[in-house]
Amino acid sequence: MLNPSEITLEQGGNVAEFVKIKVDTLRQFTTDVIHKFGVPVEDARIVADVLIASDQRGIGSHGLQRLVRYTNGLKAGVMKPVTEVKVLKETPNTLLISGGDGLGQVAAYRAMELVIDKALKNNVALAVVRDSNHYGIAGYYSMMAMEHDLIGISLTNSAVLVVPTFGKDAIMGTNPISVAIPAGKERPFVLDMATSTIPRGKLEVYNREGKAIPDTWATDELGNATRDAARVLANMLEKKGGGLLPLGGAGEDGGGYKGYGLALLVEMLTGVLAGSAFGPQLYASKTVPAKVSHFLGAIKIDAFIEPSLFKSKVDEYIAMIQNSAKAAGQGRIFIHGEKEFEIYEQQKEEVSIYYKVVEELRKISQEVNIPAPF
Amino acid sequence: MLNPSEITLEQGGNVAEFVKIKVDTLRQFTTDVIHKFGVPVEDARIVADVLIASDQRGIGSHGLQRLVRYTNGLKAGVMKPVTEVKVLKETPNTLLISGGDGLGQVAAYRAMELVIDKALKNNVALAVVRDSNHYGIAGYYSMMAMEHDLIGISLTNSAVLVVPTFGKDAIMGTNPISVAIPAGKERPFVLDMATSTIPRGKLEVYNREGKAIPDTWATDELGNATRDAARVLANMLEKKGGGLLPLGGAGEDGGGYKGYGLALLVEMLTGVLAGSAFGPQLYASKTVPAKVSHFLGAIKIDAFIEPSLFKSKVDEYIAMIQNSAKAAGQGRIFIHGEKEFEIYEQQKEEVSIYYKVVEELRKISQEVNIPAPF
Repeated sequence: MLNPSEITLEQGGNVAEFVKIKVDTLRQFTTDVIHKFGVPVEDARIVADVLIASDQRGIGSHGLQRLVRYTNGLKAGVMKPVTEVKVLKETPNTLLISGGDGLGQVAAYRAMELVIDKALKNNVALAVVRDSNHYGIAGYYSMMAMEHDLIGISLTNSAVLVVPTFGKDAIMGTNPISVAIPAGKERPFVLDMATSTIPRGKLEVYNREGKAIPDTWATDELGNATRDAARVLANMLEKKGGGLLPLGGAGEDGGGYKGYGLALLVEMLTGVLAGSAFGPQLYASKTVPAKVSHFLGAIKIDAFIEPSLFKSKVDEYIAMIQNSAKAAGQGRIFIHGEKEFEIYEQQKEEVSIYYKVVEELRKISQEVNIPAPF
Repeated sequence: MLNPSEITLEQGGNVAEFVKIKVDTLRQFTTDVIHKFGVPVEDARIVADVLIASDQRGIGSHGLQRLVRYTNGLKAGVMKPVTEVKVLKETPNTLLISGGDGLGQVAAYRAMELVIDKALKNNVALAVVRDSNHYGIAGYYSMMAMEHDLIGISLTNSAVLVVPTFGKDAIMGTNPISVAIPAGKERPFVLDMATSTIPRGKLEVYNREGKAIPDTWATDELGNATRDAARVLANMLEKKGGGLLPLGGAGEDGGGYKGYGLALLVEMLTGVLAGSAFGPQLYASKTVPAKVSHFLGAIKIDAFIEPSLFKSKVDEYIAMIQNSAKAAGQGRIFIHGEKEFEIYEQQKEEVSIYYKVVEELRKISQEVNIPAPF
């Protein structure tokens, strides 16, 4: 569960700093901009939709804030505008796919379509996508499966930021795990979690606010847990050592080796199973493709039990959890995805974009000579 | 990764308190004992092997220490001696299986054999096993896949001990996740982790030693993080509220909602996908079957890349992690499963069993009139 309270924090936490923009307008503008960089309009629409869906769900860190990185990648030629999705190996249940160093969203979207098709026919299907790029929120693709009464799975490796248990250097990505499970009356269960305790953006917020970070978040250049966000960020920049901690924190007492294990697992099922790049081999330099890999899957519920029975069971389980007794001072127990769905419902027509992101969008708009309608 | 240093702690931590027993002797004795309770000899052998493998791997908490619970279950009639494994629904890739309220190890072992067979033929296979019981270490079944060049998956729901984020009551199990991935020259990657920060046994150790527990481990009866192990254990016994914390600890700061999400995920893929019992519905009383469910899977590596290439990539990745710079004061970075394989190698022929467990075994031995050869 991405925690929306983190997001607003991450973005400054001040409502006055957000600009409200109509979703349709923003989608058209973003599509046009991406298209101007040589991306086919259909593909540009996919990228725009994934980015804006993230902002709509309150996850600014993976929303339009990322656009400039993509346009930079396209300009530098390390990201191809035409995403040639090529099936390298195929069985009735599996796919090894090349994303052709194109746009991660396009490669993952097309791959997930194929996975859904195979799962509907053959009960379970998995795809490993190699030669891809940053694909936005992992949950976008897992959620694609739900409307077909499938359970969706989406994992990706990512740029190194996280240290292993007892390690000094960041040699793993935040390697997220997303699984989406449809419900009946209740909102679906959508787990979408980095395997690190926090995303890097949270360090930036605490640094800006001069607050000490909890000691389960990051390590200093010696590999010791630290409360000093500024130091961690400086070390990251200078590659002096240290980085984000895996879920569970430093050492073994808090179970940090489990978060570390999940990060390894994601890398094994993505970069390693693709026979491609892993760890520090991703984003090796600014002049070569990022070589990101994804793992996508779908499981047909009907292969086990009637989907309607399943969904009523999910409802029953969710209600049982939600209605259970609360800890002192707490009024609500959340199910994963719930906060994001609530924010999404508020932002269905109009979405709040952080003013700095809006400024960036305006800059890109001038660059490609498409007037920004906001 | 189950942490063997925890285990010895859990068991008292004193070498003098362990009895060394020949593995062959112990396996024969355990098989004979279980058989005496009406379990077919082949099935008894499976249960004995899973339990002893756990002790050999240094995981005493899931080893022969559990035998008395099984024999009690068999005597009470809530666990059936003959495990009638019945396929309720089947496709070329999936199985819904009933374990007939028999022995969890037998149901899971047989189900995993079927999963492996299907995955070898059809690239990916999944089984959900319902009407089962405690199956021992999750990693036993995921590891079965490795010798076939398959990636193995094993999840199970379990008795409630864990509180959700912002919740007061334990309404989730420690719901473990195991994935086993074969390597070439290196030892395989075997993730086998409860989704709670710690197992209950660790509270008992800290309580015995009068030590304060870290605040990421458990909550008191109000749902607040506590350092008082005795209080948590007393509350558990009296069902007053509180329990183990999900991986990441209390609240949201340390990412506890991620561990909580993983626990929900495991329940969704086991009890819920089986259309069976979940959460507090498991082990509902001492007079009814436990209704545990498992999720087992296998993925054929060759469907994606050549297994030999894959294994050399796994080797390369593992070596990269292991050889990376160490945190201050640390000499080694561990890969998941590594500690257990090292302990196993030491205990291949002869295994150390905690004296209290040996006493229990001797008691059972008298009960069934099979002389204990130790």
